[in-house]
Amino acid sequence: MQIPYNDEELQTQREMIRLRRDFHAHPEEGWCEFRTTAAIVRVLENLGFAVLTGENVIAPDARMGVVEERLAAARLKALEEGADATILDRMGDLTGCVGVWKTGRPGPVTAFRFDIDALRGVSESLSPEHRPAALGFASPVPNVCHACGHDAHTAVGLGVARWIASHAHELTGTVKLLFQPAEEGVRGAAAMAKSGVVDDCGWLFGSHVGCEFGPNEIGILTEGYLATTKMDVFFEGTPAHAGSDPEKGRSALLSACAAVMSIQGLPRHSGGDSRVSIGRIEAGEGRNVVAAHGRLELEVRGATKEVNDFLADEVRRIVHGMAEVYGVKGKVVKTGESCRYVCDPEAVAILEDVAKVLPDKTKATVFTTERGSEDCAVLAERVRSLGGKAGFFCFGTRHKGHHRPDFDVEDEDAMLLAWRVFTGVLARLHHV
Amino acid sequence: MQIPYNDEELQTQREMIRLRRDFHAHPEEGWCEFRTTAAIVRVLENLGFAVLTGENVIAPDARMGVVEERLAAARLKALEEGADATILDRMGDLTGCVGVWKTGRPGPVTAFRFDIDALRGVSESLSPEHRPAALGFASPVPNVCHACGHDAHTAVGLGVARWIASHAHELTGTVKLLFQPAEEGVRGAAAMAKSGVVDDCGWLFGSHVGCEFGPNEIGILTEGYLATTKMDVFFEGTPAHAGSDPEKGRSALLSACAAVMSIQGLPRHSGGDSRVSIGRIEAGEGRNVVAAHGRLELEVRGATKEVNDFLADEVRRIVHGMAEVYGVKGKVVKTGESCRYVCDPEAVAILEDVAKVLPDKTKATVFTTERGSEDCAVLAERVRSLGGKAGFFCFGTRHKGHHRPDFDVEDEDAMLLAWRVFTGVLARLHHV
Amino acid sequence: MQIPYNDEELQTQREMIRLRRDFHAHPEEGWCEFRTTAAIVRVLENLGFAVLTGENVIAPDARMGVVEERLAAARLKALEEGADATILDRMGDLTGCVGVWKTGRPGPVTAFRFDIDALRGVSESLSPEHRPAALGFASPVPNVCHACGHDAHTAVGLGVARWIASHAHELTGTVKLLFQPAEEGVRGAAAMAKSGVVDDCGWLFGSHVGCEFGPNEIGILTEGYLATTKMDVFFEGTPAHAGSDPEKGRSALLSACAAVMSIQGLPRHSGGDSRVSIGRIEAGEGRNVVAAHGRLELEVRGATKEVNDFLADEVRRIVHGMAEVYGVKGKVVKTGESCRYVCDPEAVAILEDVAKVLPDKTKATVFTTERGSEDCAVLAERVRSLGGKAGFFCFGTRHKGHHRPDFDVEDEDAMLLAWRVFTGVLARLHHV
Amino acid sequence: MQIPYNDEELQTQREMIRLRRDFHAHPEEGWCEFRTTAAIVRVLENLGFAVLTGENVIAPDARMGVVEERLAAARLKALEEGADATILDRMGDLTGCVGVWKTGRPGPVTAFRFDIDALRGVSESLSPEHRPAALGFASPVPNVCHACGHDAHTAVGLGVARWIASHAHELTGTVKLLFQPAEEGVRGAAAMAKSGVVDDCGWLFGSHVGCEFGPNEIGILTEGYLATTKMDVFFEGTPAHAGSDPEKGRSALLSACAAVMSIQGLPRHSGGDSRVSIGRIEAGEGRNVVAAHGRLELEVRGATKEVNDFLADEVRRIVHGMAEVYGVKGKVVKTGESCRYVCDPEAVAILEDVAKVLPDKTKATVFTTERGSEDCAVLAERVRSLGGKAGFFCFGTRHKGHHRPDFDVEDEDAMLLAWRVFTGVLARLHHV
Repeated sequence: MQIPYNDEELQTQREMIRLRRDFHAHPEEGWCEFRTTAAIVRVLENLGFAVLTGENVIAPDARMGVVEERLAAARLKALEEGADATILDRMGDLTGCVGVWKTGRPGPVTAFRFDIDALRGVSESLSPEHRPAALGFASPVPNVCHACGHDAHTAVGLGVARWIASHAHELTGTVKLLFQPAEEGVRGAAAMAKSGVVDDCGWLFGSHVGCEFGPNEIGILTEGYLATTKMDVFFEGTPAHAGSDPEKGRSALLSACAAVMSIQGLPRHSGGDSRVSIGRIEAGEGRNVVAAHGRLELEVRGATKEVNDFLADEVRRIVHGMAEVYGVKGKVVKTGESCRYVCDPEAVAILEDVAKVLPDKTKATVFTTERGSEDCAVLAERVRSLGGKAGFFCFGTRHKGHHRPDFDVEDEDAMLLAWRVFTGVLARLHHV
Repeated sequence: MQIPYNDEELQTQREMIRLRRDFHAHPEEGWCEFRTTAAIVRVLENLGFAVLTGENVIAPDARMGVVEERLAAARLKALEEGADATILDRMGDLTGCVGVWKTGRPGPVTAFRFDIDALRGVSESLSPEHRPAALGFASPVPNVCHACGHDAHTAVGLGVARWIASHAHELTGTVKLLFQPAEEGVRGAAAMAKSGVVDDCGWLFGSHVGCEFGPNEIGILTEGYLATTKMDVFFEGTPAHAGSDPEKGRSALLSACAAVMSIQGLPRHSGGDSRVSIGRIEAGEGRNVVAAHGRLELEVRGATKEVNDFLADEVRRIVHGMAEVYGVKGKVVKTGESCRYVCDPEAVAILEDVAKVLPDKTKATVFTTERGSEDCAVLAERVRSLGGKAGFFCFGTRHKGHHRPDFDVEDEDAMLLAWRVFTGVLARLHHV
Repeated sequence: MQIPYNDEELQTQREMIRLRRDFHAHPEEGWCEFRTTAAIVRVLENLGFAVLTGENVIAPDARMGVVEERLAAARLKALEEGADATILDRMGDLTGCVGVWKTGRPGPVTAFRFDIDALRGVSESLSPEHRPAALGFASPVPNVCHACGHDAHTAVGLGVARWIASHAHELTGTVKLLFQPAEEGVRGAAAMAKSGVVDDCGWLFGSHVGCEFGPNEIGILTEGYLATTKMDVFFEGTPAHAGSDPEKGRSALLSACAAVMSIQGLPRHSGGDSRVSIGRIEAGEGRNVVAAHGRLELEVRGATKEVNDFLADEVRRIVHGMAEVYGVKGKVVKTGESCRYVCDPEAVAILEDVAKVLPDKTKATVFTTERGSEDCAVLAERVRSLGGKAGFFCFGTRHKGHHRPDFDVEDEDAMLLAWRVFTGVLARLHHV
Repeated sequence: MQIPYNDEELQTQREMIRLRRDFHAHPEEGWCEFRTTAAIVRVLENLGFAVLTGENVIAPDARMGVVEERLAAARLKALEEGADATILDRMGDLTGCVGVWKTGRPGPVTAFRFDIDALRGVSESLSPEHRPAALGFASPVPNVCHACGHDAHTAVGLGVARWIASHAHELTGTVKLLFQPAEEGVRGAAAMAKSGVVDDCGWLFGSHVGCEFGPNEIGILTEGYLATTKMDVFFEGTPAHAGSDPEKGRSALLSACAAVMSIQGLPRHSGGDSRVSIGRIEAGEGRNVVAAHGRLELEVRGATKEVNDFLADEVRRIVHGMAEVYGVKGKVVKTGESCRYVCDPEAVAILEDVAKVLPDKTKATVFTTERGSEDCAVLAERVRSLGGKAGFFCFGTRHKGHHRPDFDVEDEDAMLLAWRVFTGVLARLHHV
């Protein structure tokens, strides 16, 4: 357990817990984080941050996996739940924001990235054994909830903002706090990267709660996470009565199934681990009608961008070829993408340095992982391509597993641990 | 156009049009025809018929394609729309009824079959150019409407009932009017056949409105309609995270797609025409999860029972084998079945004889067809297997095509034509 | 049994049996009938026929399924077995010939077609119970033999030639005896049709021994035989070591198997019966090498040209699309093609007329069939497209089934029956 | 280049080159190494080794991929080429042998393994630029040649034998020289392991020429090579005429193609790298016949035994399930198997120790590899399971690539390098 050692820590912890529970009780899926963003903007501006929103932080055409028809309702709901109308106006259709603190003193530019979206596809447990339900801050929205802990990430970000504001006189250079939308499905980082908001950054750090780490543990990434591309595939055929005129139809169902067989059979790669998952298929309108519409949801992953791109390109070729095989139309829409997270030794060293002096017997481990994907990698790649350095760490908590109905950040003081790491990094890079 | 030539015809025609529009305005899908059945029962009993309902006319375990969870709501809706509670009680969960008229005089037993269900899967056009909409009797129920003309069939049946009651003194033997549920999807006839209600019948006749026949035309079937089996296929796999543990999953999606490829590839048959249609597939829960559930909706058809059974048996074998291939569970549920409609020359001769004296320049054609299926064939097969004779005819109307949102029995006097055929048959078989 | 009733019949019968056994003992597969053609030419010319060969009877570019590398060896073998070198020179690389008899008197032009090739793919039985083996005229060539009776067809043609020569003074008009190569695989008729040699014909008749007819039976075709297209499919991929560099290969094996699955799944056709058969696949070079080469042998059939062409076109589309799916090259080569055989009522009537006066209690049946294909249909179609009439008949014999190692024309006097039919036709159409 | 530094090295080198070229000129594929084995036995016995053959070194029922019908001819050929008849008699049908040298002094038991078979499937280049062809020792056998360098391995083994014999007085313990048949296709090691011949060994070392190492290089394996299972799959269907009776056939071709699609789609494994390769398919007898026979040649590989076994088990399940899908018989025959090669640190240390004092600027590298398989791993696993230690090294040469027609051990003095390593190991482990 992380114990607050002074008033600042105590108040920060209380504030982070309060904020985290508020976000938890108002979950918004990716690209719909209107209330969440507006709340962040208000806190940041109250603290004295300059806050960028809209196209200053999100390149609209680089957004992936936007479900356009949900945006207006999400915006309206945010308004009904008390989001500031003026802030919403500044945002337009684009969620996410960046708080910028310029000290006025020469020094580095450092970005910390916090992702803010809830997960779609899981309904939060309402069991009395599930703490958020018992304490009354569980998600009231069916099929959407903070089952990955981004609510905690956001709260940590605002805790760090508070520290910056009150320690401003001791700092140099510029700090940017990135509140990124739509991490689930690795959909949002590319749009934030393309906006250029991290192009002047010398350092970028991201983090995640939980994963394989428990209480009082932090994990410092060297490099890892699989590159991945998420794709929706659409087939459009020609309907016909399957009993009367079978030869007049062009089946979107058959083309979808044949594509599944070929995609699933994509070869292994000598360049490293790979994954192929066709997770959903839906095709056809009725038992005796040649199917006019078919749809696949799939993803590929690879140890490297090369492996991942090989697979993604193959999927596109298969779909186009299979459309010809069945005389239908085929289309592939990219709904998310991330790359391998490569950390710089200098960033790893700073995190190790911070970890050494963490209180409460906190244990730090250097790690690598091939088991999931994290789109902060895309921001890291942008920063590194321009000469900056990137790092990443996990901060542990007890939890029952991400993306489950009963996920909870069971040790909420884990947020204090993350806060100590982030502020420790600033103390090393930005102290006067 | 069919012109009423006397008061009886005029009043019958008016009554049939009134009834048909009432049924049209209150469409009920197969196995849910509670209001429709109750209305039929009341009319028949008012005319003096003995009316059988429930297990006397439907063998519960021979029903196919019942969606259990819809029955209670349908029953309640019928009650709200004025169905007689006492009649509903007699019916229990089973729709359909049989009106029996025993003359007391020795003579044959003849059954006429009328199907009563509306079609699920089509929403009726609300365009002012669509007559039922313009006249206010279009279906108010989304996705359910009388787009196949069974409303007219039911009305004809009641028109014939009226004739029997008023001509009772001239008749011999017994007449049974079968009001059969769930013809759409060929789900209901087998249950009525199995109840034994036609086992004493020497003759059985059925009919259909429209098809390829226009106004003032009747078509007399020699033999035809494809035997068919409708099946739903279920696969149950083992979910796993497709990125972390791909080898731990057992994909219901892959097994479903592979089954599709093999089923679609079922061989042709030397015994005659066949059809295979996999019209729907749905599988999987999420992009990065190995699919736990998969489902297919399909049908096969054959010129003969042998051809159809060959295909249906193959589907079952493929599903069970494919379940083993993918280490999942596979299940096939039959949701409908019909056979070839074989008419007896004697029945054809009677219809031809009746047709010769039809007024209004009505034209009769002897025909065969391989383009659809009709589950009255199952009742015909039952009657014939016990030594009876079966016939079938179509009565024409202008229409835009069955199973379309804008289907209408545009010449409603077509019902008078059908009535003349049925009563003409009785005049030949049952006249004292 | 057919009994010779006069010296002419007796000598013709003996000659036909002698010739048939000689052809049987020297079987030559399609496009390799060098010895057979040379022998026919010599007999015809000795009788006084003008004989056309080479490009006068075969359009080289319309030949299908030619295995170029076998031609030279076949020619050499013919020479070694005594074929006349001068005749071989006239033929060039093209087998088959047409004997023309012009009476000089005005009258119709009638063609009779006889196919001359042996079957590749079956080795004749050497069992002493197999009469050709017992009598010493069985095929000495492994994998090639007269297992379909074309040896008998050829002998009948030469028997008819003999009759024409000796009855020349009684005849009018012109008679053409077509000795067509490469009927097996329906490869030869199109090339003979395209040569134009039947373009002046008012009548064309063909025939086949056996099929479903027994001794003393003839079958007169009204219309039948399935249209068919035979195709070889080739895939060319990119080899790679499947263990070291799986992603560098492009598998011709996978593309071939996926094409098989899609071709086998071609839909039924409302226009009538259809067939799809992929009879052979061979792909790959070694267990651990991504396959560079793949090959399919397949055929489609249809009740009509439309049905058949639909399927053949679909095969081509599937192959090209699947080549794109797998990043390989795909090629379809047509190796044979025939159409439905449509007979004219006038031709059927003549055959019926002839059949009435056949001796030996010969029974004639008018028939249709959908069970095989016969490329004489292509010549019939050519004649009919230019205004001529076409007919076809089968003449029965005892036999164990075509295309079997133990096939034999067990009643060789069946040839006398065919000869009586052909000469009977001439007696009706060409008698002065 | 390795330079002989004394008479012993000079004579050994000459002898190894002479032997290697003799084996090269008389290549024998796996399980057919009769002449090769007989030659080895004679050399070993002349040197004073006790030589085990037949079931003493090969467990007959553990042999994989034996082509029984080739054994007798291979034996006869060996006899004709001068193999000693007495030795052949001792061997029976089993090739391979083990030379045992007991010093009589207490000490360890050490086994060195040399594989002796040539490769089937490649015909050696006869180009004058190919040194074996130019010098007259190229393979005279089509489709079989020493394209992997096992001829050199065998020669090294006999060179080591010579050293043991002449240094016998300086040695302790026991040395076993294993001459293993059928390494190609990883077919032979399991049978040698199962014979028990290495069960008393405290040490086992194997080696390979070439791979990624050049002249004057040795590679010392830590652990590597993929576990692998080679399988042949057989389907047996029911033939039928595809035009006349398509429904009566059960296609071995379709089942084979469908199995290919499912096998190629086997999932990735979280336990590490995997490979699937279906390298050959052949099915069907003729274009218009439902295929009665089908055959696949395939292999799977995995970074670990667990991964490999998962895939091999899945292949078996797919084949059995697919046989049910298509109503055919399916059979899987294992034709080869190997495991991951795990080396002990003690063995690695000895090799590193030897390498340090190698002359001629020889460079040693410690390496791991995932690119191929090596069945010496099976013997290593056996030794290790009983408490012994295992090592492995590669010795470099110039070459154009293994398994190519133009493969050659271009620096034949590479054998001297291998000899120095093996004898160096003995000098460390067995010196008095």
